[in-house]
Amino acid sequence: MGEKDFDHVRPIVWREAALHLLDQRLLPQRYEELICRDVAATAQAIENMVVRGAPAIGITAAYGVALAARARYQQAPNRWGQDIEADLERLAATRPTAVNLFWALARMRDRIREIQGDPGDALLAAAQAIHQQDIDANYHMGSLGAACIDSPCAVLTHCNAGALATGGYGTALGVIRSAYAAGRIRQVFADETRPWLQGARLTAWELLQDGIPVTLVAEGAGAHLLRQGVVQWIIVGADRIAANGDVANKIGTYNLAVNARYHGIKFMVVAPTSTIDMGTAEGGAIPIEMRAEDELLCLQGQRIAAAGATAWNPVFDVTPAELVDVIVTEKAVVTAPNTAKIADLMQG
Amino acid sequence: MGEKDFDHVRPIVWREAALHLLDQRLLPQRYEELICRDVAATAQAIENMVVRGAPAIGITAAYGVALAARARYQQAPNRWGQDIEADLERLAATRPTAVNLFWALARMRDRIREIQGDPGDALLAAAQAIHQQDIDANYHMGSLGAACIDSPCAVLTHCNAGALATGGYGTALGVIRSAYAAGRIRQVFADETRPWLQGARLTAWELLQDGIPVTLVAEGAGAHLLRQGVVQWIIVGADRIAANGDVANKIGTYNLAVNARYHGIKFMVVAPTSTIDMGTAEGGAIPIEMRAEDELLCLQGQRIAAAGATAWNPVFDVTPAELVDVIVTEKAVVTAPNTAKIADLMQG
Repeated sequence: MGEKDFDHVRPIVWREAALHLLDQRLLPQRYEELICRDVAATAQAIENMVVRGAPAIGITAAYGVALAARARYQQAPNRWGQDIEADLERLAATRPTAVNLFWALARMRDRIREIQGDPGDALLAAAQAIHQQDIDANYHMGSLGAACIDSPCAVLTHCNAGALATGGYGTALGVIRSAYAAGRIRQVFADETRPWLQGARLTAWELLQDGIPVTLVAEGAGAHLLRQGVVQWIIVGADRIAANGDVANKIGTYNLAVNARYHGIKFMVVAPTSTIDMGTAEGGAIPIEMRAEDELLCLQGQRIAAAGATAWNPVFDVTPAELVDVIVTEKAVVTAPNTAKIADLMQG
Repeated sequence: MGEKDFDHVRPIVWREAALHLLDQRLLPQRYEELICRDVAATAQAIENMVVRGAPAIGITAAYGVALAARARYQQAPNRWGQDIEADLERLAATRPTAVNLFWALARMRDRIREIQGDPGDALLAAAQAIHQQDIDANYHMGSLGAACIDSPCAVLTHCNAGALATGGYGTALGVIRSAYAAGRIRQVFADETRPWLQGARLTAWELLQDGIPVTLVAEGAGAHLLRQGVVQWIIVGADRIAANGDVANKIGTYNLAVNARYHGIKFMVVAPTSTIDMGTAEGGAIPIEMRAEDELLCLQGQRIAAAGATAWNPVFDVTPAELVDVIVTEKAVVTAPNTAKIADLMQG
């Protein structure tokens, strides 16, 4: 299909009664869609990271439920509401850390319980509402986050918390887009984000679609970069925020947060309230996904490391709330987050 | 040639009147030597990282001077002592950060000034003395460093400060070898070390040659690993140590040092006194080499990042002395290094 303008970067599209996912494993070299026509294909696409990013995983799972309902109702119109529970469980088992997945499945389950008759249209509408709500939240967070940045500066982001990780526009990259447009960001640095290279492959591509220049750095260069005194904010997304404000996000985030504090640089987390898990008291209770060792031991399908070497490949880490200066949600901005402030936010 | 036992891993060998360098760009997939028969080939091998690691660069340059002297004496026996200055300058221009290069060239220049008649044998002997002195220093530092580790623990190392980076045995990996043999290290973690992957390609290979199990981690996983409470020491080499104890080493070292302090983990630097630069008062004055953006933008010759993305690729950083718990040299162990202690060490 070739490259697209940002306005057209849509990682998740419902079209012709099927779910079209932009295959993020192939970017930026190839822009190809993978079409999911059933829940099995949808679950596999989440597992294999065709689609990734906490909000995008939640939206994809919601569409997966709509696909499942259509099939279950055709098979057994009187029993679909029970049968679909297996599909919800299959989707829930795809990836453990991002809570938006469980949030979206809970919302879809609530809707399932209300439906009489053919669920197809109603559940598709519910998935589309989750999708649209996420895009709206991103635009709103973009404004709120940009307002926190008071003078033109350079920022560093990690992984990809952009249009590709969400319904569209992005969380961290939404703030960066809004702040760049408002003249509050002059320069964007992006970690390459080993092992999956979300920064090099996805964030750089996405920002360049918008004409925002981006400079890649190795994760190891983070502290040295911060010491130069150019970067004033680190801006990241989140996969799950505990009730006390601890933040699970892509491996490497905690590393940056420790260095931000050491260097006196501000640390911003941007995430919709669907990422806040009030059922998890603190970050230590968040399950951290371990992925295959080969993500580190091999590159482009070729073994790099010596035969016999093993790898430890946790793909998320937890940043304690005390290292977070600001959490930007679509409801409000929380500074110096803690349990009381997060509770206020969620009740507000 | 196939793989070799550790005892036979010799990155730098003088044989049949030529310098044989193990080509570290090809490891661990291929074990091939590159033969340098003149100073031009030697300088190019240092620039292109056929050989790397501060002590190994110094030793290689010393052999390069021996090759240069042979050629200059053949061309102009009465003028070789002046003519060779251009060769010394060529070697000095290869890489800016590792001070062992300049240290070795200064030693060879001193020797050049003393020689009457054909310099071939005398300068080869001087290079071989530098080489042997480095190996001896590594074994001694191995013992001294291992003695600092008082109970069986796990350690994390960065880049490759091993046999491959030195005359043999290694600095940081020399301590790890000695401490592992003494039962003081149970587990070794190694950063993969982007962008050149010295950890994944070289350190893992080298340790496995010795039967020491090694677990690779992405640089981004460092803080998360340290939080697990398993690692008690971070052990690294150095490319240049300033007179106040600030340490220039592979990019990512400073990042680890900040995280070590935050997590209460000890930080050990292992380097021979040839790495200490008394002419540089503090780390801010150490020149930091910038290498090609393509080291980050491409992998295995294939472009990864979107067209238009740029990269910032400093390959060293500076760790302030205040974050270093111990510097191990062949002369002595310096705890909590500062200007006075480094001066004492160098005068002792």
